[in-house]
Amino acid sequence: MTELHRIAIDTMSGDNGLSAAIPAALLFLKEYNDTALILVGDESKILDELRKHNQEPNERIKVQHASEVVLMNESPALALRGKKDSSMRVAINLVKDESADAAVSAGNTGALMATGRFVLRTLKGIDRPAICAPIPAASGHTYVLDLGANIDSTSEHLYQFAIMGSELATAIDGVEKPRVGLLNIGSEDMKGNEQVKAAHKQLQDGGFNYIGFVEGNDIFHGEVDVIVCDGFVGNVALKTSEGLAKMLSQEIKAGYTKSIFTKIAALVSYPVLKSFRQRFDHRRYNGASFLGLKGIVIKSHGGADDVAFANAIGIARKAVIEKVPDKIEEQLQKHLVD
Amino acid sequence: MTELHRIAIDTMSGDNGLSAAIPAALLFLKEYNDTALILVGDESKILDELRKHNQEPNERIKVQHASEVVLMNESPALALRGKKDSSMRVAINLVKDESADAAVSAGNTGALMATGRFVLRTLKGIDRPAICAPIPAASGHTYVLDLGANIDSTSEHLYQFAIMGSELATAIDGVEKPRVGLLNIGSEDMKGNEQVKAAHKQLQDGGFNYIGFVEGNDIFHGEVDVIVCDGFVGNVALKTSEGLAKMLSQEIKAGYTKSIFTKIAALVSYPVLKSFRQRFDHRRYNGASFLGLKGIVIKSHGGADDVAFANAIGIARKAVIEKVPDKIEEQLQKHLVD
Repeated sequence: MTELHRIAIDTMSGDNGLSAAIPAALLFLKEYNDTALILVGDESKILDELRKHNQEPNERIKVQHASEVVLMNESPALALRGKKDSSMRVAINLVKDESADAAVSAGNTGALMATGRFVLRTLKGIDRPAICAPIPAASGHTYVLDLGANIDSTSEHLYQFAIMGSELATAIDGVEKPRVGLLNIGSEDMKGNEQVKAAHKQLQDGGFNYIGFVEGNDIFHGEVDVIVCDGFVGNVALKTSEGLAKMLSQEIKAGYTKSIFTKIAALVSYPVLKSFRQRFDHRRYNGASFLGLKGIVIKSHGGADDVAFANAIGIARKAVIEKVPDKIEEQLQKHLVD
Repeated sequence: MTELHRIAIDTMSGDNGLSAAIPAALLFLKEYNDTALILVGDESKILDELRKHNQEPNERIKVQHASEVVLMNESPALALRGKKDSSMRVAINLVKDESADAAVSAGNTGALMATGRFVLRTLKGIDRPAICAPIPAASGHTYVLDLGANIDSTSEHLYQFAIMGSELATAIDGVEKPRVGLLNIGSEDMKGNEQVKAAHKQLQDGGFNYIGFVEGNDIFHGEVDVIVCDGFVGNVALKTSEGLAKMLSQEIKAGYTKSIFTKIAALVSYPVLKSFRQRFDHRRYNGASFLGLKGIVIKSHGGADDVAFANAIGIARKAVIEKVPDKIEEQLQKHLVD
């Protein structure tokens, strides 16, 4: 029998805590039988929650006690110094001491990144880890990084993001030579700031499948697999998309519930609206990878429900199987030597 | 009789040139009888196009010949130096010598900004002009600037953008004390780059209706009137929104045309879909203001049709009536003295 993959789940963080994390873990375990989960948090509460679902610890459901919880609005520095027995910290410690192959948390992004960086350290050759997530596009999805771990990225950082994003796209989706684009505000060579211009040159010579500058709208065209940008810019692009998608879906809903006639229209349109909703269900895209660390850390959205959280655990499993950090390190050495 | 407002129209630029600009001018003139338009471009072609619509020059339709056209992908520097008789340049010259109160062009953004800056100069106290446009929100719309005229904006530039954006919101929509937000990647005081942090302090002390940091999703919440950001960031946010909106509308269309059943659903849904489309019709939001110049320059989208272009002329008319540059200058002096 092959050994089980082991993923540590921070069950206490996020807006929904245990009530999302435990059902998510059980959903995940039903789908994949090659992985064991280590549920990290208040042991008695975890056991209570498991009991609600008629479950108890077993070979694939382990429990690891942690006495504290990092709050969603807590300062990363304070969380790091003050809460050494938080569910988040203990989950990452398990990765560090090789008791787990990956950690998943829906907690405070800043604290998770700071803890991941402090405990696991960055890969040799990586100055700054980056946050990378898939964004739905006309065909499939586009990986965008950095989504907010770094601001004021240099051209060298952008180059490292390209290596990391390419490896993630290959690992998760099996894309052989991911098309890499550099986010800019125009496709002419003359536009953009100094960092972007310098990164453009480096990427042209870097042995990537580099397609050049792309603009914000290209995120959704499905003609590029990985888009590289500074974390301030990437975070604004992500939040802007989320905000627009939310507003549009609310407006469509409001339009279809205005009167008895529009409600009938909604009924008749049900198959269309349903397939549309499924296609763009943000839960399917949940699970951002913290790339550049010596270990796998996946961030689930703070407000994730069980389905979304289970998806993030699925991303962690794939990253474990594909050994993403090792592959990034290999590529880094190759690019540094080149 | 009160004097007519006079707006110069660059009829030759943009993807659609005369075939959008002339019908747009006629649409506009039908709606407003207080304004005369000066159609700038190849005189014989303009007259031909007018004739197609059974029109000829009159008190409200003037023609001003210009022998050249700035191409959409032409370098701003080359356009400025090499094409001194372009329709774009001549339209802006008319503003400079006070033969027109405003200029509207669907041409190359970079060339239009460079020409506007060179010919009209910037207002005293403004280091960099900015591009500002309304983006549809849950209630009404949100003005965002800068949308790409500047990169690497300092805190002082961001502060100036706040002054200009506030004055525009007041002039165009009559909002008395526009709520101003500063785009950042988190709402905590500690986040953001140095420029954003410094601008935050300046804005808190600036006598604005300043509501603090906002994030990308707040563009669409309708709870802020003006959002200030660096041009690189603003351009990415704008293009990202455009790209997402386009993809979603294509996917909805595809969903409703899949089969005979979904086509029936589309028919039944027609009133809902129509009101939705009208609400978010990008043509209603066409017309970006170049703020900070000693004169009014409005940029129409390169691909604008007649309805969209006419909307941009409408924005120019409102800016003329409300004397936007004068008001910005007044506010600048006040803020500088404070």
